[in-house]
Amino acid sequence: MHTSSGMQVCIDHCLRCYRICLDMASSHCLELGREHTKPAHIRLMLACSEVCRSAAHLMLLGTPHHRDLCAKCAEICEDCARDCERVGNMEECVKACRACAESCRKMAA
Amino acid sequence: MHTSSGMQVCIDHCLRCYRICLDMASSHCLELGREHTKPAHIRLMLACSEVCRSAAHLMLLGTPHHRDLCAKCAEICEDCARDCERVGNMEECVKACRACAESCRKMAA
Amino acid sequence: MHTSSGMQVCIDHCLRCYRICLDMASSHCLELGREHTKPAHIRLMLACSEVCRSAAHLMLLGTPHHRDLCAKCAEICEDCARDCERVGNMEECVKACRACAESCRKMAA
Amino acid sequence: MHTSSGMQVCIDHCLRCYRICLDMASSHCLELGREHTKPAHIRLMLACSEVCRSAAHLMLLGTPHHRDLCAKCAEICEDCARDCERVGNMEECVKACRACAESCRKMAA
Repeated sequence: MHTSSGMQVCIDHCLRCYRICLDMASSHCLELGREHTKPAHIRLMLACSEVCRSAAHLMLLGTPHHRDLCAKCAEICEDCARDCERVGNMEECVKACRACAESCRKMAA
Repeated sequence: MHTSSGMQVCIDHCLRCYRICLDMASSHCLELGREHTKPAHIRLMLACSEVCRSAAHLMLLGTPHHRDLCAKCAEICEDCARDCERVGNMEECVKACRACAESCRKMAA
Repeated sequence: MHTSSGMQVCIDHCLRCYRICLDMASSHCLELGREHTKPAHIRLMLACSEVCRSAAHLMLLGTPHHRDLCAKCAEICEDCARDCERVGNMEECVKACRACAESCRKMAA
Repeated sequence: MHTSSGMQVCIDHCLRCYRICLDMASSHCLELGREHTKPAHIRLMLACSEVCRSAAHLMLLGTPHHRDLCAKCAEICEDCARDCERVGNMEECVKACRACAESCRKMAA
């Protein structure tokens, strides 16, 4: 494969964050109600999930355009982590978002 | 729907550019060979397609994060349009990419 | 493009159903609460949206495997249309799902 | 999360097959030329990648509709594995497709 080991690590983080955000939004959040089910929170979880999925896709394609998308992905992951902390009881998602953000910042540098 | 008519127009452009880039990469380019089948060209077509798909997705979700992704989408669409002009015989793709880039710049403003 | 005019019509229906299901789930349903926000309904809307998106993708790629995915897409669209009728106040989504299901059945035949 | 450990294993296989097919199509195959770059082979790799991505997505959403998509995913993975064996020098992809097919068949059962 054309992807470096550093990039493979970032793809790991993006796909992990994609799957945790989507899984938790669809199960945990939709079922708990209250702050977890507020439209802005669910939308942010789904948007974070989509951008992580797409950043991984660009890295896998091997185009230099992945850098900018990784920079963008880091920002939405940080926003999602903050919102999950505010909502509470979302530790796994906070952790995945922060790890993905850090990895994406390195990739974008 | 929560999306404005301006946003619906941008979603139209993104989904149109997504489908033309993917269709032309998979049929036209893979079959013509030479410059059309060079890895960098096919990868750029597929990456442009993916970013357009994802920008439309964020607009449909209705999160404010769509702005940054639209800005990014405009850039990759311009790069794809330029590369398609260089390769030649890609007029439909050039046109769709330019229209999408213009629409995404407005959305990002 | 390698895609026939019949296939282009089916891609139109799939992308239209994708966007209406995602937009309505994220805006209309998450905001209305009650039956609209029940986990099973939101999940079905998001799953229908994803399968439509993916069926369009396979048609655009031009592989013969699109037939089976179109058959599957027709089933989930019918299920989604029925659930939207049950929930009520979802006419636009019901219409898009039914039109997509009919178009996908033709494509799968 | 609502997903069982058996389902998490299948999501692992689908995301692994997605990423190996996309990475190898975009790097290895587009660069090697000859049989590797024939349109039907590249299209099948990209289609297999997309269906794996989408099957994982439905499992993550937690809808019962994932079963049918997993059944379909198993078929396209077997077709992709066979085509990769025919083309040759694609061992990693053959292995990922076979493992994903087996896991998807269990999930669909």
